[in-house]
Amino acid sequence: MKIGVIGGGQLGRMLALAGTPLGMTFAFLDPAPDACAAALGEHLRADYDDKDHLRRLADEVDLVTFEFESVPAETVAFLSQFVPVYPSAESLRIARDRLFEKSMFQELGIPTPAFADIQSQADLDAAVASIGLPAVLKTRTLGYDGKGQKVLRSAADVADAFAELGSVPCLLEGFVPFTGEVSLVAVRGRDGETAFYPLVHNTHETGILRLSVASSNHPLQKLAEDYVGRVLDKLDYVGVLAFEFFEVDGGLKANEIAPRVHNSGHWTIEGAECSQFENHLRAVAGLPLGSTAKLGESAMLNFIGEVPPVDKVIAIEDCHLHHYGKAFKAGRKVGHATLRCPDRATLDRQITAVESLIGRG
Amino acid sequence: MKIGVIGGGQLGRMLALAGTPLGMTFAFLDPAPDACAAALGEHLRADYDDKDHLRRLADEVDLVTFEFESVPAETVAFLSQFVPVYPSAESLRIARDRLFEKSMFQELGIPTPAFADIQSQADLDAAVASIGLPAVLKTRTLGYDGKGQKVLRSAADVADAFAELGSVPCLLEGFVPFTGEVSLVAVRGRDGETAFYPLVHNTHETGILRLSVASSNHPLQKLAEDYVGRVLDKLDYVGVLAFEFFEVDGGLKANEIAPRVHNSGHWTIEGAECSQFENHLRAVAGLPLGSTAKLGESAMLNFIGEVPPVDKVIAIEDCHLHHYGKAFKAGRKVGHATLRCPDRATLDRQITAVESLIGRG
Repeated sequence: MKIGVIGGGQLGRMLALAGTPLGMTFAFLDPAPDACAAALGEHLRADYDDKDHLRRLADEVDLVTFEFESVPAETVAFLSQFVPVYPSAESLRIARDRLFEKSMFQELGIPTPAFADIQSQADLDAAVASIGLPAVLKTRTLGYDGKGQKVLRSAADVADAFAELGSVPCLLEGFVPFTGEVSLVAVRGRDGETAFYPLVHNTHETGILRLSVASSNHPLQKLAEDYVGRVLDKLDYVGVLAFEFFEVDGGLKANEIAPRVHNSGHWTIEGAECSQFENHLRAVAGLPLGSTAKLGESAMLNFIGEVPPVDKVIAIEDCHLHHYGKAFKAGRKVGHATLRCPDRATLDRQITAVESLIGRG
Repeated sequence: MKIGVIGGGQLGRMLALAGTPLGMTFAFLDPAPDACAAALGEHLRADYDDKDHLRRLADEVDLVTFEFESVPAETVAFLSQFVPVYPSAESLRIARDRLFEKSMFQELGIPTPAFADIQSQADLDAAVASIGLPAVLKTRTLGYDGKGQKVLRSAADVADAFAELGSVPCLLEGFVPFTGEVSLVAVRGRDGETAFYPLVHNTHETGILRLSVASSNHPLQKLAEDYVGRVLDKLDYVGVLAFEFFEVDGGLKANEIAPRVHNSGHWTIEGAECSQFENHLRAVAGLPLGSTAKLGESAMLNFIGEVPPVDKVIAIEDCHLHHYGKAFKAGRKVGHATLRCPDRATLDRQITAVESLIGRG
């Protein structure tokens, strides 16, 4: 089976590493000449709206999937004429727009921070009056890793915020006094079979994920599965979906969903029986899902900007390096390490050992 | 770091799957147009003695390694002028010739079956008179998967045996009444650091490995490590080496070594903390070795001729498919499955489940 992937970054690369042993081959559509997934499959170097190359991709592969959600809706619609596309155009349409996703959460009874659609500075002023400060203004689309958002703490912050974010449609979200950030990575097959990985505690710095620690028997696991299950069923979703929540007052408030394999699920490559990458491919290919059970205690640390010396990373016991083969650049995700330990105390020590290798430039 | 691999079959493919996350890239020299490792790296399609392509490979990569041992000695010598080659030319020279390896075992005090160098039918007749029947006549070089050998049970079998094997240099080995076949996969770094995986019980059918089961606390582990350690040090070996033994009277007799990653080590991909493939690459690249510790109970079943339906294989709990992407053909290794279980009783049930999917054509 040949899989077409829109995007050829590290997520595509890890999909190919997981799918090759299942006998799958891969083609990546990505305009970047140095797309790091290209080492593991065919590289169609073209823009995401290049219909000639989209048609060529559709003709070559058995199905198409995505490694990022900001794919133009027309691209998805065009491809869908010729080849099965998972997740669906509708799933992407919702997930790529913060207003659509928040509205869906609300409709499904999933708690969210207060939010308002912002089409102008006047909208923003009115919404701030209603929601209050602090609040976060986010572009409705194309935001990632803390980009396309601004925290508003004072009237001065509010004054030109709409223009600062480019005068594009935005969402204002009330600030949530959260005690933690957690994510649930889920997978749903073509037949509706669903599986959930353990909740993951995430730590961000300057908007970028730094550390994910898989939980054991988290008291909010069932609640999170309930919320995520509602979304999966509503969207008749196929593939892996990640759902980020704020932990607030012992409950959960929805932050956002990603309709794809997700950074907070990278620990599953070594830390779970079947990784999120293999499970995404199983789902879209119509194969039975794999077990999401954890193997011991597990955590993932991102390498941002540069990968520490390889010999030092892999000298740490049961530490697994994932180098993305990308050029090093400040603020760029260029690799991660997975830790797998028999108990939490050992895991905490190993996290410290990896952190000591990470420069704080 | 770019690694050159002589041979582009499934072992090269699995090396690339293990090395890509370490940031390595790969080039495979293999004359076959459909070399299955080519999906994961550059494919130099040329004969193994094609000096132009060997020189090109040497210029492109940081070091060269091998996925099979029957590489012409001239190839290794030629490459060694331009680029580091691991394991060494001397290691390959010994391992590819049954007389040289058996003589080395003898020199190192490692028990072997009785053996004799056979250059003619007259040599064979004399050796049979001395060693007795049954015995096994094997070509000194180029044998694998039961090819290039003949079991001699009667004078009639002996009569034309030398000509039947092509009138090439052979070795006669006395038949060993073994109770089991085990192998030890070992790895030795550039600095002499050595690590051993647990002994593996192997089951062959018609000369081809079918089933490998990793042992726990095998009573012969230390003895095997002692024997293998002698060979590693004697050869100043760098990389993974597999040593196959016969279990005889509660001890071990040396069968043969393979100077490369080995089919009986495939279980380590999911079954050990660090796989034989990653450890081979760590060793040749001068990186610290990874842990050879087992994760639970583990076994590997080969798929010969064809891979069973993918959905059925991966529906088995914690069963990991490795499809080599090769055309199906009777007698050809086209894939394997790794099982990983919490206990031996579960493992035995899962082995039966996988075996039930394997056709016996």
